[in-house]
Amino acid sequence: EMAKLTQLLDNEAFRAYATYATIVLLKMMLMSPITAYFRITRKAFANPEDTVSFGKGESAKKYLRTDQDVERVRRGHLNDLENIVPFLGIGLLYALSGPELSTALMHFRIFGGARIFHTLAYLIPLPQPCRGLSWAVGYAVTISMAYKVLKTALYL
Amino acid sequence: EMAKLTQLLDNEAFRAYATYATIVLLKMMLMSPITAYFRITRKAFANPEDTVSFGKGESAKKYLRTDQDVERVRRGHLNDLENIVPFLGIGLLYALSGPELSTALMHFRIFGGARIFHTLAYLIPLPQPCRGLSWAVGYAVTISMAYKVLKTALYL
Amino acid sequence: EMAKLTQLLDNEAFRAYATYATIVLLKMMLMSPITAYFRITRKAFANPEDTVSFGKGESAKKYLRTDQDVERVRRGHLNDLENIVPFLGIGLLYALSGPELSTALMHFRIFGGARIFHTLAYLIPLPQPCRGLSWAVGYAVTISMAYKVLKTALYL
Repeated sequence: EMAKLTQLLDNEAFRAYATYATIVLLKMMLMSPITAYFRITRKAFANPEDTVSFGKGESAKKYLRTDQDVERVRRGHLNDLENIVPFLGIGLLYALSGPELSTALMHFRIFGGARIFHTLAYLIPLPQPCRGLSWAVGYAVTISMAYKVLKTALYL
Repeated sequence: EMAKLTQLLDNEAFRAYATYATIVLLKMMLMSPITAYFRITRKAFANPEDTVSFGKGESAKKYLRTDQDVERVRRGHLNDLENIVPFLGIGLLYALSGPELSTALMHFRIFGGARIFHTLAYLIPLPQPCRGLSWAVGYAVTISMAYKVLKTALYL
Repeated sequence: EMAKLTQLLDNEAFRAYATYATIVLLKMMLMSPITAYFRITRKAFANPEDTVSFGKGESAKKYLRTDQDVERVRRGHLNDLENIVPFLGIGLLYALSGPELSTALMHFRIFGGARIFHTLAYLIPLPQPCRGLSWAVGYAVTISMAYKVLKTALYL
């Protein structure tokens, strides 16, 4: 039984972490099919074997190219990795550090909202500073959680 | 003692997660020496300080270039990051959500096999849709685990 | 209470993991403002909407370019992702595998020191093999932890 295994998922702050970590990871995973969509509609591929269905030999080679829409999605995907990986690690330790439930929920909700808004700001695209501010909000939330983890657990 | 610390590693589903998470991370780490191998054999580097042993001044500058074999390994490495990070986070929460051992093992084994096959399909390379299908299988396994996590732990 | 939730953060090896995982993630996060600093001072941007404050229309387009200093920081950031993600996952499982506290501390301290030195070697830059060796030290520490995890938890 789960309850015998661990009380982790009986704890509401840990359940909130599990929920928001899963949501932001699913959002990040969504970048892959979006990249594929733009690669196919813009006919812009990175690998020769991906262009075979568009023709043979020289006629397929012209689809080995970069496209600004594809590169934009890829930059958004990489920015997700750079920011969601710290959230995953620091957020897990934060959830284990005994935060107030309401404080923990506030951190997770703001981070999740900021990253979803960041993706919209990147892909539409919205004028700056929309994307920059949404990045900064998620960054600040992660720093705040890191402070709590180090205050609770510091062991050098 | 470990058993006093936590029962996590006494649980078979969690041990299975620990095993497969470590295997796919070691597989991902293997991309670094493979990149180094192609950089050295193709003499294609990104940093001026890396080319010093191949000559001085202008003669070394010609090795600051991109190479299709190097770029292929780097794309495989980035694809690993994009897919193994969600597996690490969602898989950990899934292992804590009390899955049936046989179901958990099935998820972890299919994901591990799919990612190893994906790397082979990328590096050999195998014709499409080999790489695309192996990517999709790992992706679907992660979505299935995310569904179980949200069903068990949802706390917005 | 934290103690009721889990004994994880009562364990000194786990607290050491929490401390060093947070430190290397904060170090990785530092790469984002460093990238922004070089993008602004070198006037080298990836997105048209980021160049608006530097002029309108054609005059802003010339800032959509790559710059060697910006690219160097971005390579360091990606190398962090490639190496810190395995440390996060394998290190967490290692901390749960019941290591001797002194052995665990040695692993975490060497990894943390190696990655901080790697960033310095990349950004200054120091001559090779400084960067290569610091990468290899962090890599070896992660392999050593993976060996302990698989020895303790192996369940295929």
